[in-house]
Amino acid sequence: MLRMSTYFRSQAAFRVRIALNLKGLAREDFFLHLEKGDQFKPEYAALNPQSVVPTLILDDGKTKLFQSLAIMEYLEETHPHPPILPKEPLARAWVRGFALINVADSHPLIVPRIRNYLTKTLKLSEEQKLAWIQHWLYAGLKAMETHLSEHPDSGEFCHGAAPTVADICLMTQVTPARVFGCKFDAFPRVMRIHDRCMKIKEFADAHPTKQPDAEK
Amino acid sequence: MLRMSTYFRSQAAFRVRIALNLKGLAREDFFLHLEKGDQFKPEYAALNPQSVVPTLILDDGKTKLFQSLAIMEYLEETHPHPPILPKEPLARAWVRGFALINVADSHPLIVPRIRNYLTKTLKLSEEQKLAWIQHWLYAGLKAMETHLSEHPDSGEFCHGAAPTVADICLMTQVTPARVFGCKFDAFPRVMRIHDRCMKIKEFADAHPTKQPDAEK
Repeated sequence: MLRMSTYFRSQAAFRVRIALNLKGLAREDFFLHLEKGDQFKPEYAALNPQSVVPTLILDDGKTKLFQSLAIMEYLEETHPHPPILPKEPLARAWVRGFALINVADSHPLIVPRIRNYLTKTLKLSEEQKLAWIQHWLYAGLKAMETHLSEHPDSGEFCHGAAPTVADICLMTQVTPARVFGCKFDAFPRVMRIHDRCMKIKEFADAHPTKQPDAEK
Repeated sequence: MLRMSTYFRSQAAFRVRIALNLKGLAREDFFLHLEKGDQFKPEYAALNPQSVVPTLILDDGKTKLFQSLAIMEYLEETHPHPPILPKEPLARAWVRGFALINVADSHPLIVPRIRNYLTKTLKLSEEQKLAWIQHWLYAGLKAMETHLSEHPDSGEFCHGAAPTVADICLMTQVTPARVFGCKFDAFPRVMRIHDRCMKIKEFADAHPTKQPDAEK
């Protein structure tokens, strides 16, 4: 059985949960509370040198995978059906590029370690911290909306007729943007695809609010 | 002929320059001065909705690729020799995961748009800004060093006997760390591989200091 470290609010864990669900792969979760610092305990730091989630431990109980996008690529290569990347190299490049707007250029700017630094080291106010978070989430949403408006293969989903890694990462852009009070009027394409994906059981079941460790 | 938007200091452009050089693909660069704001001019913002470099424009003069990691994956799929990813899925996952320590979790925290926000919006001092930059670069270097120490296939390069995307992204972790005055005593494996890569013409020619727009 696959085992995965997770925290309900982690967008990186959310990505991998969706991908595993789409691939029909069962997993056993083990829970870290990132805001209480579980990730820094020596036994977890030994498993994941960045002290982040998720870490995916394969069936052998030893082999560990890290970084959500690398894990999704691995799942695609080892369990190709249903695909979460298109076949054609240009389409794959677009999907991966779109995903990285979230994975590289938005999400890493708002994770707990950054918010801790803003609070504890830079002594920002709650208002300044929220402005920071919204600023970078809006930048990513704006870029996603523009890319969708220009991409002839976008429609029901970001690319083509079924969800891909792009939709997974659109989901992990919108979800924290909702938590942190962003407005979505300027992003109709993004929100249409978000709402479409949330009708898919594999996405909905992976949502932070549905996880056993979610705060009520 | 491939055309690429670039800025000598951009680590994302540096990655793609190395990959293109390794693949033996010629390109024509067009230069943006990111610190003067060239990327926000309407004609470039229309080309790249994030207003970032690089954008790679294909031979047809129209098709554009964005996000350095997505571009490198595209080059690997369309020009497989010499490979810049290993063949085996677990090895590919390790290489991609290692690369993302730089691409997702370090580099996006120190790019010009972040430094501008720290200076202009948060009014940080130069000392606070340098501490921020070094903090995140050190976090990535430490994770890379630990992963290398645990990875049986690391040695002359991050994985195996020839450079991969992991080595490219190690290079773009070390290069800014040097610019911003980090110390490397705790990262002997990282630095050994950095120095090895810099002996390879395809890496050395791509270095920021060798670019036509580099400041003397």
